[in-house]
Amino acid sequence: MLILKSFLKFMIIRRCHHSVGIIGAPFSRGQRKGGVEKGPDYIRTAGLIEKLQAQGCQVKDYGNLKLDDVPNDEPFGKVRMPKTVGLANQRLADAVHTVKKEGRACVVLGGDHSLAIGSILGHARSQRDLCLVWVDAHADINTPLTSPTGNVHGQPVSYLLKELQSKIPVMPGFSWIKPCITAKDIVYIGLRDLDPEEHYIVKNLGIKSFSMTELDRLGMGRVMEETSDHLFSKVKRPIHLSYDIDALDPLVAPATGTPAIGGLTYREGIYVAEEICKTGLLSAVDLVEVNPSRGKTEEEIRSTVNAAVSVVLSCFGQAREGSHPINYQLPEP
Amino acid sequence: MLILKSFLKFMIIRRCHHSVGIIGAPFSRGQRKGGVEKGPDYIRTAGLIEKLQAQGCQVKDYGNLKLDDVPNDEPFGKVRMPKTVGLANQRLADAVHTVKKEGRACVVLGGDHSLAIGSILGHARSQRDLCLVWVDAHADINTPLTSPTGNVHGQPVSYLLKELQSKIPVMPGFSWIKPCITAKDIVYIGLRDLDPEEHYIVKNLGIKSFSMTELDRLGMGRVMEETSDHLFSKVKRPIHLSYDIDALDPLVAPATGTPAIGGLTYREGIYVAEEICKTGLLSAVDLVEVNPSRGKTEEEIRSTVNAAVSVVLSCFGQAREGSHPINYQLPEP
Amino acid sequence: MLILKSFLKFMIIRRCHHSVGIIGAPFSRGQRKGGVEKGPDYIRTAGLIEKLQAQGCQVKDYGNLKLDDVPNDEPFGKVRMPKTVGLANQRLADAVHTVKKEGRACVVLGGDHSLAIGSILGHARSQRDLCLVWVDAHADINTPLTSPTGNVHGQPVSYLLKELQSKIPVMPGFSWIKPCITAKDIVYIGLRDLDPEEHYIVKNLGIKSFSMTELDRLGMGRVMEETSDHLFSKVKRPIHLSYDIDALDPLVAPATGTPAIGGLTYREGIYVAEEICKTGLLSAVDLVEVNPSRGKTEEEIRSTVNAAVSVVLSCFGQAREGSHPINYQLPEP
Ligand SMILES: [Mn+2]
Ligand SMILES: [Mn+2]
Ligand SMILES: [Mn+2]
Ligand SMILES: [Mn+2]
Ligand SMILES: [Mn+2]
Ligand SMILES: [Mn+2]
Repeated sequence: MLILKSFLKFMIIRRCHHSVGIIGAPFSRGQRKGGVEKGPDYIRTAGLIEKLQAQGCQVKDYGNLKLDDVPNDEPFGKVRMPKTVGLANQRLADAVHTVKKEGRACVVLGGDHSLAIGSILGHARSQRDLCLVWVDAHADINTPLTSPTGNVHGQPVSYLLKELQSKIPVMPGFSWIKPCITAKDIVYIGLRDLDPEEHYIVKNLGIKSFSMTELDRLGMGRVMEETSDHLFSKVKRPIHLSYDIDALDPLVAPATGTPAIGGLTYREGIYVAEEICKTGLLSAVDLVEVNPSRGKTEEEIRSTVNAAVSVVLSCFGQAREGSHPINYQLPEP
Repeated sequence: MLILKSFLKFMIIRRCHHSVGIIGAPFSRGQRKGGVEKGPDYIRTAGLIEKLQAQGCQVKDYGNLKLDDVPNDEPFGKVRMPKTVGLANQRLADAVHTVKKEGRACVVLGGDHSLAIGSILGHARSQRDLCLVWVDAHADINTPLTSPTGNVHGQPVSYLLKELQSKIPVMPGFSWIKPCITAKDIVYIGLRDLDPEEHYIVKNLGIKSFSMTELDRLGMGRVMEETSDHLFSKVKRPIHLSYDIDALDPLVAPATGTPAIGGLTYREGIYVAEEICKTGLLSAVDLVEVNPSRGKTEEEIRSTVNAAVSVVLSCFGQAREGSHPINYQLPEP
Repeated sequence: MLILKSFLKFMIIRRCHHSVGIIGAPFSRGQRKGGVEKGPDYIRTAGLIEKLQAQGCQVKDYGNLKLDDVPNDEPFGKVRMPKTVGLANQRLADAVHTVKKEGRACVVLGGDHSLAIGSILGHARSQRDLCLVWVDAHADINTPLTSPTGNVHGQPVSYLLKELQSKIPVMPGFSWIKPCITAKDIVYIGLRDLDPEEHYIVKNLGIKSFSMTELDRLGMGRVMEETSDHLFSKVKRPIHLSYDIDALDPLVAPATGTPAIGGLTYREGIYVAEEICKTGLLSAVDLVEVNPSRGKTEEEIRSTVNAAVSVVLSCFGQAREGSHPINYQLPEP
């Protein structure tokens, strides 16, 4: 039996062959609510790494980024803590670049969604032609000049988009940033809470967007089909999946900073990840905005963290239909 | 910034241009459970009017109808309080007619669903060719002679239908009522709890009906498409949306008099309203059967009332994909 | 009125004409958790029989099977209590055969899912060409040699499949069992928690399987269409519906032994039963794995038991769109 088990494990590894690098990114300065910096450790404690290994992934944990507040970090206009957020993202970009250079799919555990700046820029250093699937209740595409709150976690996409470069002021901490994607490289899934200025940008740039309205109209099956059609119409290319846990309904994932009613079901949330996995093109994942301090009960925290873990597992081979090793043979009496 | 905000508000008003009149209709005599008369004020207190204004609607609140019990109001057969219910509807019909004459979309906040009699008759005085979308767990189409309970909130559609006129006895308080719609003008959405006699009527008259079974089969996207095809096959015409909050699942809207398991999700409930809004043909809305006294907890009341508010907001321009003013320009550094 | 009511009841009986035999099967030895043997009585106490009669079914309750533990019932390999489970199934097979000989649709109330062995074998004695719709979070298709737990409720399908006969050892208590179905006769609905060996079997034998992934992709409407296409491509034949309550989401049916997150909604669970009913081919139903002892609150038990009752009612004529007697006439004033 022990021999069979070892054999099984070997075969599963051969089959799934995902090699995954985990970076903990305890960012919290892209917004104002304490607790989101605990996300990476809660997700690890829930067994993410062991479960990835159990489903056949090779996992290297790169640990948590060391992040410090930069002193004298005055707001730039409304934008809060630009030097701190900028520096953290610079470090993250380097870390992601390292993971990619070492040939692994990169998983960044947040932390708030401002980390997408560094994660995507780091990823783009080795994968120039990446495309971006942004799963979120929010578009996170305010510019520093349109943001109503000044929180950078509502702005990351604006810094990344070549089309918006002329709208972005020169900001302390952000000078290293060069936009790396274009509007046609992005698909949004799950939107339901946009500022008017964000809606203007999304429509004006023609970004493909499946809001909850489109989801209700089409169903998640067609949404993922159309996502694939849009991104891979010409050529297959690496996917960066930036997954804000608040895309899920607050009944599923309540422990998050800006929950929004009427979100993805657990099943829809997993389906997105499964389908992205099946493309064979997933190159990096951000899993962000798990904030254990926002859970009103232990059960709310548990549900949110477990959803996050399940999303990542589904990104790397876990399938609800099951899976089995190649060349498996049934035992006979 | 203040100038920009004023500009934005002006533009949004130009864009949405919904002019809405609100009538509170604290009807409760169409059924037996206390509390439903508090619906209008709970919905107002949750900020309906301010939120409609914030999304660019011009709103006039016509206040609550003054309603009194008519003395010596004996049952007619099984039908309870016919004079009281009849008179209340007569007043409501006048009030709705006034709102329509003044050029506004009319929102009637219930109160129980018997108010649909007055609301639709008043609406029909100025909009002869209206069609009716009835969102409800129930068909509310018992005649006074088939009603198992005698509650008029289970009968309103029967009084309105030309095809049923010969089945309706002459009743005290109801002599002013002349049926104003035909079976082909109606679409039901959300049905799941019908009396056999109601099912007979719906089938026999060929009323288009999307029960939860059809919803499960087709999905809400196709249901709204087919609703539109059915109602507007020949010509566009004004829509009367009569929305019973019990159409929503009791997990979403528990504070109602006759909850029925297996209802619309919050998302489906909003999608119906969004799609009706997009037709540009919405002329009057009833939002009924919010009964704060039926909530077992504050949270149950809050959830029900908020769902009601969101439905009305979605009827008049709130969209989950977002919206933005015409001619908006992004600020540059 | 009384006369009308009697008339209605008569007509409904003529219309639905389902004749149903109920067998209580308080099996619990196919797994390790106490309480599942109480399922049949909880389901009866919730009014199953009265409600079936109220919707026009003729019902005969065959009572509960008397089951005893066989002494000296040592595990066979990992398989637990083979003599006890084998004997219980032998008795159940006889009881089901009796119900079918008496011309009734057979409803077996479990009890754990190991009872499907006896239920299906008994059914097959009189219906050789039956097909099987297995609604479950689990495939229950481990062989005695692949089962990780040894619990027979995770293995029943393996004993029934002709294709697996060479993989099944001779076991005490199981010698009377002869496989009666082939892989192409089965459709799975709701799968989301399979052992690798089970996945191998399902794929290798080409069993039609709608996991939650397919459900999310296609929607339940198309799943039931394709189920019908698959089973009746050549000829109509009797359906055995084996319905594990854990197919439903744990939010709906928490009181069960092996709940699995991300299951069928209440509506999907009912839709399956309604569609099976509409085929006119339903010949036997297992409703299993209701375990009142696993409910953490009274409400959890109530919700689970009521879901079970609703599934069975929908199997035998209850429809959310409603129903009415043939030849019904509306009363006139
Ligand atoms: Mn978000
Ligand atoms: Mn975000
Ligand atoms: Mn209703
Ligand atoms: Mn109603
Ligand atoms: Mn199961
Ligand atoms: Mn089972």
